[in-house]
Amino acid sequence: MLRQIIKRGSSSVVLSSRIARAVPSRAALFHSSSTQYSASKTVKLTAESYPNVKRDERYATLEQSDIDYFKSILPENALIQDQDDLLFYNEDWMRKYRGQSKLTLKPKTTEQVSQILKYANERNLAVVPQGGNTGLVGGSVPVFDEIVLSLANMNKIRSLDTTSGIFKADSGVVLEVADQHLAENGYIFPLDLGAKGSCHIGGTVATNAGGLRLLRYGSLHGSVLGLEVVLANGKIVSSIDALRKDNTGYDLKQLFIGSEGTLGVITGLSILCPPRPKNFNVAFLGVESYEAVMKTFVKAKSELGEILSAFEFMDESCQELAKKHLKTAYPLEEQHPFYILIETSGSNGEHDLEKLEAFLESAFENEVIQDGVIAQDETQLKGLWNWREQIPEACQINGGVYKYDVSLPLSDLYGLVDAARERLTQAGLLGDTEDFPVIDAVGYGHVGDGNLHLNVAVRRYEKSVEKALEPFVYEWVSSKKGSISAEHGLGFQKKNYIGYTKSQPEIEMMKQLKQLYDPNAILNPYKYI
Amino acid sequence: MLRQIIKRGSSSVVLSSRIARAVPSRAALFHSSSTQYSASKTVKLTAESYPNVKRDERYATLEQSDIDYFKSILPENALIQDQDDLLFYNEDWMRKYRGQSKLTLKPKTTEQVSQILKYANERNLAVVPQGGNTGLVGGSVPVFDEIVLSLANMNKIRSLDTTSGIFKADSGVVLEVADQHLAENGYIFPLDLGAKGSCHIGGTVATNAGGLRLLRYGSLHGSVLGLEVVLANGKIVSSIDALRKDNTGYDLKQLFIGSEGTLGVITGLSILCPPRPKNFNVAFLGVESYEAVMKTFVKAKSELGEILSAFEFMDESCQELAKKHLKTAYPLEEQHPFYILIETSGSNGEHDLEKLEAFLESAFENEVIQDGVIAQDETQLKGLWNWREQIPEACQINGGVYKYDVSLPLSDLYGLVDAARERLTQAGLLGDTEDFPVIDAVGYGHVGDGNLHLNVAVRRYEKSVEKALEPFVYEWVSSKKGSISAEHGLGFQKKNYIGYTKSQPEIEMMKQLKQLYDPNAILNPYKYI
Repeated sequence: MLRQIIKRGSSSVVLSSRIARAVPSRAALFHSSSTQYSASKTVKLTAESYPNVKRDERYATLEQSDIDYFKSILPENALIQDQDDLLFYNEDWMRKYRGQSKLTLKPKTTEQVSQILKYANERNLAVVPQGGNTGLVGGSVPVFDEIVLSLANMNKIRSLDTTSGIFKADSGVVLEVADQHLAENGYIFPLDLGAKGSCHIGGTVATNAGGLRLLRYGSLHGSVLGLEVVLANGKIVSSIDALRKDNTGYDLKQLFIGSEGTLGVITGLSILCPPRPKNFNVAFLGVESYEAVMKTFVKAKSELGEILSAFEFMDESCQELAKKHLKTAYPLEEQHPFYILIETSGSNGEHDLEKLEAFLESAFENEVIQDGVIAQDETQLKGLWNWREQIPEACQINGGVYKYDVSLPLSDLYGLVDAARERLTQAGLLGDTEDFPVIDAVGYGHVGDGNLHLNVAVRRYEKSVEKALEPFVYEWVSSKKGSISAEHGLGFQKKNYIGYTKSQPEIEMMKQLKQLYDPNAILNPYKYI
Repeated sequence: MLRQIIKRGSSSVVLSSRIARAVPSRAALFHSSSTQYSASKTVKLTAESYPNVKRDERYATLEQSDIDYFKSILPENALIQDQDDLLFYNEDWMRKYRGQSKLTLKPKTTEQVSQILKYANERNLAVVPQGGNTGLVGGSVPVFDEIVLSLANMNKIRSLDTTSGIFKADSGVVLEVADQHLAENGYIFPLDLGAKGSCHIGGTVATNAGGLRLLRYGSLHGSVLGLEVVLANGKIVSSIDALRKDNTGYDLKQLFIGSEGTLGVITGLSILCPPRPKNFNVAFLGVESYEAVMKTFVKAKSELGEILSAFEFMDESCQELAKKHLKTAYPLEEQHPFYILIETSGSNGEHDLEKLEAFLESAFENEVIQDGVIAQDETQLKGLWNWREQIPEACQINGGVYKYDVSLPLSDLYGLVDAARERLTQAGLLGDTEDFPVIDAVGYGHVGDGNLHLNVAVRRYEKSVEKALEPFVYEWVSSKKGSISAEHGLGFQKKNYIGYTKSQPEIEMMKQLKQLYDPNAILNPYKYI
């Protein structure tokens, strides 16, 4: 039973109807981006979808002598040349982009990566580093005939210091495998995301993934201690043995965190892992305005402090879509304009629950929140998470969805949803009947991180909708000094939009860095900046 | 009364003798470095102490026309030319280094900083950016006649978003002033150190200061959200409006964190501040070996988890020195080979204390720790901290001290103290009588951060002691893949030792960055790399 500890108009504990749901997949949460979902069987070549992007003639074309060289330094099964086998490496996870690579290389050692890049650099062969290929901005697949350099075979856990929590591994280790190893030793990987079963830890670092634990454990810029990187010219630069504190020179590793494979190839990493929390609690709340969402957030930070591990908000519209999709009883009896999901995690379950209950009671008494329930067991906990995690799927199930992943100052966070809804309505695109392409514009996201997911649920894809939304959304975000990519990166998709978030001097500095470390621009071309 | 909740050989609660001490200054803790304390009245010119370091003739000499230009862009009181007044800017906090600058500039705006640097860059005038001048490696003072660019007049708090905890300020705001402002709004600056009453927040970022809250809040690389920086050529590059999540391009600000003013001048910053904990607890423990220290650390991380905010260790030798210095009753009745200070901080005092007591009781029952007390009030809490914080002073009071601030893998942390003691003993330098220059080699530090302070307490400074210790200590640290500067930076003092921690390819990359952003090398010359 979900314990409904608080409900406006009732001072006693009320039990709501039984909620029993399947364990949610977190994939939906992760795989949100400003792209359209597509169910088409054949993915159009990127070169056809984007005819304005031309192959850069500076790059050499792969020759038999190149294959021979790679064969001489790699075991036979490390070269993939079969067209069908190559499809996996050419297509992105969303099936939106398709490259035309003729060769994927799967080295097993850092030394092999070094040899590959040294050769490619001398030959001017373009290379796309690829992790688990779960990216959402087309950053991990080739655009034309670039060689794919897959890290999948570099999958060894190197060490875990159980005293300090310092974990070292090859970059191709799957996130879930790493976290499982850590769990067995009482630690937790300080990052979690829906694609954990496929994505590589090196890929999460290369894209500076945000995910579900950022509110609690902070960004990878703080937790990654060292990186082993192969530069474009094949030089190996390693800080993988760095300790928690080291103030001897520029912190070079930071450049590679979030560089999406454009400055070097990460082959190994060292990361500081926190002790694994022993207990998790989840509460689901109804509030009457976005202002109340912010008030609840400030109160939660202050009163739940060190045990607060997630603070997610959802508007009424997306919960209605979720309700239709999930086809289960709603956790709260009445409807509210906004909903909040709070997760706590800590070392003492009794203490955590006591804090959470005291917080909710006080929030209720002070009329900050209108209603709320706390999950009483693991199934209910996952069930409540489901109402947050199934939103992306619920938004696209009636035809499609346009998705935007942005950072905004908290006070402006929901304003973008209102603005988008108004714009679509005024343009005559949003309505209740089949005549209108747009069903609704809905908002949800990680309030704790200032990260909004704006989803525009549509009955069908229409160019007019895209035109109404772009560059409108980017301009709106830019006017509030927000970021047009909170956690997904730039990749191929947002390469040309960086100017909405970054200034000209910053972009210039970035180009200088690219020129410095990859003068032949062989690494991940046509992307990023 | 200190509550002695646990004591081997006694199963009941025992009250120890009353401990009443003055509130400790945290300055002692902060101001530890691998340098000698000096009480001399006149500080020798750096140029005289280090005759091998020569003035670089590429730099122009200050002329009247330069002064005239600076007068034209700055208010009159922003130029300091009087020799006595200049002393403050020429001498470092430890009074070990003294430069010969003829001019200190104290701009009030970022625009003025930009004009100064643009002019200096065109004229080839060398410039030393200076914050609160509390550095410990001679990084903030001139070596020869460099112009001092003091940020002291850039001291405005720009904003605090009380919903998100994002704090923006000029870099010249004093750390304590910033923290006080945050405290009034329920937030805490995620960094604390002894020099907080003098040091600037911009300076802490420029040196990537570690300090007392690192175990809990992580490094500045994770908490700083954006920087406003003036490059050597006067260009202003700002990411100060960046939000918590922003994945649009290379994270440029990271380069300036810990760059000690060699790549640009930080004029403003934005930092994410956590909610201020409402309760603090401190326990002081005795254990029988360094292995037990590590065991207690792992147990504390697991059981105290999210409320653990400090874990400091001290060996018996340094506590004996502290005892002589403090002249007060010892918190524990018996002596132990090692001592531990644990601090917790959280949002619920009762919960925190319950966790701490349960942890201590279990550690005692499992014979991990031998004895322990918990502070019962604020005075006792500060009193217990005193036993940790007064060590640096206690070590140098009998003549002097050689200090090393290093990072080491936890398993090797104390090995360096043993090795140094053995080396000094074998060299006939360490003993109980006046015949021996060395009193003892002692160890203490932030176990949580893998940061050891090795102090060699001496009766008098003798070249033979320094020769026995250097480069021995650096070589030992290097052999364990540690860092020769955990938190103090390189500055002037450790410029030539970076090779003990960083590899040649890394040093090369750093030199490339310096060349890229400061091709005339006008920023903070003779230092860093």
